[in-house]
Amino acid sequence: MWKPDRQSKKPLYEQIADHLEKRIAYSEFPPGSLLPSERKLAEQLGVNRSTVILAFAELRSMGIIESRTGSGTRVSRTKWGATPKHTPNWNRYAEGGSFLPNLPFLRKIRDALSQDPSLIDFASGELAADLAPLDEIAALMREHHYTSYLGYDNPQGYIPLRQSLVDYLQKYRGIQTTESSIMITSGSQQSLYLITQCLLSPGDAVAIEDPSYCYSLPMFQSAGLRLFRLPIDQYGVHPEDIRELYKKHRIKMVFLNPNFQNPTGAVISSERREQLFSVASELGLPIVEDDPFSLTAFEGTAPAPLKSMDSNGNILYIGSFSKIAASGLRIGWMVAPNSIVQRLADARQQMDFGLSVIPQQVAAQFIKSDYFQPHLDRLQIQLQFKRDLLIESLRRELGDQISFVTPQGGLHLWCMLTPKVPDGKLLDEAIRRGVAFVPGSVYGSDSGFVRFTYARAKTEEIESGIAKFAEALHSLTD
Amino acid sequence: MWKPDRQSKKPLYEQIADHLEKRIAYSEFPPGSLLPSERKLAEQLGVNRSTVILAFAELRSMGIIESRTGSGTRVSRTKWGATPKHTPNWNRYAEGGSFLPNLPFLRKIRDALSQDPSLIDFASGELAADLAPLDEIAALMREHHYTSYLGYDNPQGYIPLRQSLVDYLQKYRGIQTTESSIMITSGSQQSLYLITQCLLSPGDAVAIEDPSYCYSLPMFQSAGLRLFRLPIDQYGVHPEDIRELYKKHRIKMVFLNPNFQNPTGAVISSERREQLFSVASELGLPIVEDDPFSLTAFEGTAPAPLKSMDSNGNILYIGSFSKIAASGLRIGWMVAPNSIVQRLADARQQMDFGLSVIPQQVAAQFIKSDYFQPHLDRLQIQLQFKRDLLIESLRRELGDQISFVTPQGGLHLWCMLTPKVPDGKLLDEAIRRGVAFVPGSVYGSDSGFVRFTYARAKTEEIESGIAKFAEALHSLTD
Repeated sequence: MWKPDRQSKKPLYEQIADHLEKRIAYSEFPPGSLLPSERKLAEQLGVNRSTVILAFAELRSMGIIESRTGSGTRVSRTKWGATPKHTPNWNRYAEGGSFLPNLPFLRKIRDALSQDPSLIDFASGELAADLAPLDEIAALMREHHYTSYLGYDNPQGYIPLRQSLVDYLQKYRGIQTTESSIMITSGSQQSLYLITQCLLSPGDAVAIEDPSYCYSLPMFQSAGLRLFRLPIDQYGVHPEDIRELYKKHRIKMVFLNPNFQNPTGAVISSERREQLFSVASELGLPIVEDDPFSLTAFEGTAPAPLKSMDSNGNILYIGSFSKIAASGLRIGWMVAPNSIVQRLADARQQMDFGLSVIPQQVAAQFIKSDYFQPHLDRLQIQLQFKRDLLIESLRRELGDQISFVTPQGGLHLWCMLTPKVPDGKLLDEAIRRGVAFVPGSVYGSDSGFVRFTYARAKTEEIESGIAKFAEALHSLTD
Repeated sequence: MWKPDRQSKKPLYEQIADHLEKRIAYSEFPPGSLLPSERKLAEQLGVNRSTVILAFAELRSMGIIESRTGSGTRVSRTKWGATPKHTPNWNRYAEGGSFLPNLPFLRKIRDALSQDPSLIDFASGELAADLAPLDEIAALMREHHYTSYLGYDNPQGYIPLRQSLVDYLQKYRGIQTTESSIMITSGSQQSLYLITQCLLSPGDAVAIEDPSYCYSLPMFQSAGLRLFRLPIDQYGVHPEDIRELYKKHRIKMVFLNPNFQNPTGAVISSERREQLFSVASELGLPIVEDDPFSLTAFEGTAPAPLKSMDSNGNILYIGSFSKIAASGLRIGWMVAPNSIVQRLADARQQMDFGLSVIPQQVAAQFIKSDYFQPHLDRLQIQLQFKRDLLIESLRRELGDQISFVTPQGGLHLWCMLTPKVPDGKLLDEAIRRGVAFVPGSVYGSDSGFVRFTYARAKTEEIESGIAKFAEALHSLTD
């Protein structure tokens, strides 16, 4: 993002006016469109508001922009000549379509993180740079000659990666499958998007865990689905609740994250797994099993996935490298009956014509390589260390104002705050103090819950981040 | 794809029965699901139909499958135990959703190409392996250390790639823009998908060229858009037709491919470009300008894009590396007003959470590198050579049975056949003889037109491919 040059002899306000004039001339802001507010621009550019006011005055004097009290500053409609030309009403286009925007809290967090890289990040659900196998991936890219044909990929994904995944799924998750049952996707997000767009119709009822990261995905609402909640405890959902929802609402699909659930960290007990199977088989009901965290299990191995026991074809299984290697690879997969894989692959061709071959080659090499198991071992130890550091800091700073169940894997800690404070205010106060987290309401909870991701922040930031969070909380309760 | 091992001592039919049993056990074909027909399986596996009949008999004797006359062969519902379990009715799920499947002709071509790699391919709209800069990309990947953080990418795409594109667009296309007006996409397909899904609503009317590759994209129908045609001649669309359609149907958007149009190769004349601008400005109507072929111009440079003259923000500009470098990179871009870029980037987060950073890094290096211009020079010469070879072969084999306008850039030749024959039959006859092309009806034409892509086939295949095509045509006219 452009920032004014503080070393330059040219005054800051002139630099800003020139920059805005260029962007307007390039029709980034077409005639009639609204510019960001003075306050927002000042924040983005890291200058005083008065500097922006001067820059706007400069542009106004040139007839490039117009300000009207109460309706903000707009690009002038008449600057381009005597006969005003008609620019499309882009706002109306941007508001059209069936796609709901992301949740306001998530956009607020994203904006804050992109504007201030020094913010301590307990919000982003991904690994810190030092947990990702960057050196290993760089080494693989140097060692292997990626000269295979770079044409349009097979609609189901790069065949050697699917072959590597057959072995991976057998070895690490006990799932027996063949490459023709696997589809490579751009991470779990695309798997879920394809399922909600292509296998369900507007008005269909589906069941999701409560709380659940599914609530944070407007894609469910964008697809016009009716969401019903399955409350979870420490051992996951209650299988009988699924039967109830089926009777009442004819739910068409169930979305579960059985191991180290996001956000709670819950693991479905083996007894409930068996009950889930009988209910799903009895009702002929598909379960979408999202399994991104199992390979982070801190001690021992995570329970076997539902898919490994699925002789019946009830489970659509979703996996990904995002939480165990690098989210920037954008590599995920789905294991599903053949007719479903073919349908989704065909639809995906219309959306993006498939994935780049290069990261698929890298991923295929990585899971076959001698780097993979040592990376996982290191990841587990480091995640556990960060979890422990987060828990210590929370206990020290907040004592009995906070309670949680210690997660045995995954990236997140789900906490209940005893003094209930409004989510939005707590987030604002925290961001102001330099720390970001995700409020529980994003996952469908009442206020008073927060999700801390311990995987993303640097180790040396965790203590001070929690101290800042405690200050934010106390500023609202004192 | 699995094939039986002809060197093995185990009879072919037993190998096939074992393979199918495994796939059924892994629930790739769940209980009750339909297996491919004997004829189709025989084709896929490259064996006689009688071998498949024996394999099916074997599985039937084990109670794994059931055949009923007229309704095909299904996986047995009762083999998994005394109490039959209920598998989801996957067929109903696969038929649900709002996504239309790809056009039957395109699926037929895709299936034929994937089953028989020796097929001469005049159908796939992409570069042959020897035209793609594979060595250059491999060299860049070795030379550069890709150790930048592999976290979730910026929603608009990798910033260094957007910065490189600012220079690229200025230098090669005369477009002045800034990185904040650019969004990186997974090729033109994703740009179009985002526009049709997020800026238009079901029932909206849009105008597309006739013929146009847009007809081959069911995404327009999947989005519920009403399509109106703009007939084109050698100099492109008639701008006044747009005004007419606007008056009659209140079209909301116009989709154009002004340079070396797919499929016709037409280039909109400079006079009509100016008229297009006045009509669009007068009506406040956005034009989507798809510009994938300009850098292939065989002699001189292609006309400047509409976007380079767009001081008003009427144009959504779409570009891509697919037709000038490698489709397997999956790198495209859009240049649009800021509010539109932000809206589409936000929606894309919900679909796939953005692109892999790795191919974006490779693309950014490539366009800045000393490899890029020599690659383009070589590409232009080789494409022109292949075009000439195709035209010579067509003249020799078909003489006055075929007519066309020689394209001055792009990958395709659009031909009219004088003996009109049914599209589907011609395609079947051609595939049977070992050659694939795309029937004109895929682009909205009457039968009697074909699109030959000269970029994809190997040089040494072009003559014999056209000879096979001529045989196919004559088999229907003699």
